[in-house]
Amino acid sequence: MFRPEIKVVDCTVRDGGLMNKWQFEDDFVLQVYKANTKAGVDYMEIGYLSSESAFSRDEYGPWRFCAEKDIKRIIGDAEKKLKLSAMADIGRIDYDDIPLKSDSSIDMIRVACYVHQVDSAITLAHHCMEKGYETTINLMAVSTVGIRDLNEALEDLARSKVPIIYLVDSFGAFYSEDIDALAVKYMERLPGKTIGIHTHNNQQLAFANTIAAIINGVNFLDASFYGIGRGAGNCPMELLISFLKNPKFNVDPIIETIESHVLPWREKIDWGYFIPYMVTGVLNQHPRSAMAHMESDKKNEVTGFYREMTSLPDV
Amino acid sequence: MFRPEIKVVDCTVRDGGLMNKWQFEDDFVLQVYKANTKAGVDYMEIGYLSSESAFSRDEYGPWRFCAEKDIKRIIGDAEKKLKLSAMADIGRIDYDDIPLKSDSSIDMIRVACYVHQVDSAITLAHHCMEKGYETTINLMAVSTVGIRDLNEALEDLARSKVPIIYLVDSFGAFYSEDIDALAVKYMERLPGKTIGIHTHNNQQLAFANTIAAIINGVNFLDASFYGIGRGAGNCPMELLISFLKNPKFNVDPIIETIESHVLPWREKIDWGYFIPYMVTGVLNQHPRSAMAHMESDKKNEVTGFYREMTSLPDV
Repeated sequence: MFRPEIKVVDCTVRDGGLMNKWQFEDDFVLQVYKANTKAGVDYMEIGYLSSESAFSRDEYGPWRFCAEKDIKRIIGDAEKKLKLSAMADIGRIDYDDIPLKSDSSIDMIRVACYVHQVDSAITLAHHCMEKGYETTINLMAVSTVGIRDLNEALEDLARSKVPIIYLVDSFGAFYSEDIDALAVKYMERLPGKTIGIHTHNNQQLAFANTIAAIINGVNFLDASFYGIGRGAGNCPMELLISFLKNPKFNVDPIIETIESHVLPWREKIDWGYFIPYMVTGVLNQHPRSAMAHMESDKKNEVTGFYREMTSLPDV
Repeated sequence: MFRPEIKVVDCTVRDGGLMNKWQFEDDFVLQVYKANTKAGVDYMEIGYLSSESAFSRDEYGPWRFCAEKDIKRIIGDAEKKLKLSAMADIGRIDYDDIPLKSDSSIDMIRVACYVHQVDSAITLAHHCMEKGYETTINLMAVSTVGIRDLNEALEDLARSKVPIIYLVDSFGAFYSEDIDALAVKYMERLPGKTIGIHTHNNQQLAFANTIAAIINGVNFLDASFYGIGRGAGNCPMELLISFLKNPKFNVDPIIETIESHVLPWREKIDWGYFIPYMVTGVLNQHPRSAMAHMESDKKNEVTGFYREMTSLPDV
């Protein structure tokens, strides 16, 4: 019943850290690592790869940088049973700051880019491949990209050596029919490549859209514990693992870690389904205005937020 | 772009009341009524139709009974712009306690039944039709029904005079593929009838499954404000209204009422996505054990709940 090509990528620390500037205690990261290992998750994305000059360590926790010494402190010297991933944003990592794969515990570098950055992303990804890493390119915010620009980007990606290309619903704006259409397009225009999916839950469709992608042949699946991630968050790992039929997966350690380490964060940061995130999702907009609203002292004043975003008079 | 046959049925008070024994203040019900009217919602299900002998008014609020005097107190004497619905459970309403339509503000009576109660449900629904009401039969918990029993029930329903039959995912156990298959089956085996959908959100699929039903030709759509309803709750009205293309719909009054009247209830009762509800959804079980767990003083001890439900030793 299961498709052996399917790989699950945990984004708990990487995408969750967008909500708290990666101020996770080591114990949190360690427990997520252990739970992913026990659960049979294939990859754990532990953070972003950034140059030290791009961000201040006073403001940002270690997983904004993913220095080898920080990773080693978590995973120790025992053999890894899963692969580690780190995300790289264009312009925030100098090539020289990327170690050789032989000097790093990271197995895969995922390059995130907007459509106008595709050429830079391919160059960076090729550089990472030359250093020995698995690589992906995650083309963000395609819900706002015109069809000609998207087709051109897919042509460039098809010509590249990068083996895995992600369909990313950055704003949580897509319905499953959109995922159907885009997955088919990506498969057709990127022959020989593996397609991945990364969803956001603004309209409570992150899991449903991930299933739609699976049905259409997408094989790299992003998820996070209890859906923790920017704004409305991601596809919940516990739902995805319960859905997939491969007997290697086990949801028990994920539920255990949600109880011990993720639920306490629910008291401190507001990811998940809230009306402001729903509004930006429906309007196909970046969640930053919703995040600012949720961090303000009027987060429950959702009508004002909706009217401001849709420019209706406050009657 | 829109399908004029689609009707939206608000279940905020009826299904939400399963979480608080319908202890809503009149002002709550009035605001939901006003918001539904302004939003262009077609039906508002205001509660259950029960005989006074079936439940105690000391324990249950007025919307367990839907007495005409209580309804009149809410809607006043002005002309209704939407239709009112009440749900009837087999065995909890004496036929003699159902007024003639000419003496009632209720327009539609929806008969909820399990598969073994289909004959009783048809008899009750026919009785309601004779008294002048629109009627539906809502066949609950079909995720646990064998194919022969389901086919037989659908045969009986096909022969009945009841014009609208609901596909109900009582346990929040269905994936969209299940909805696809069942919607097709219902359409084929119930020729000439309208099909409705009522979903629960245990796996964050209530909205996605409602969309799947729409795509398959289902035309009566249940939803509730902010998804309020038993356990994980229902399809959120604000998402459904934002999805539907009919310009008569307007989400603004729904968001306003969520802010003013629904969010305060979030402080008091726990509907929505929580791990215990997810577990009963994945296991295709009634949510009662999850609801009991959520009402206990150990609601965050979700690992123990999961292991108890799956009979794993508490290692």
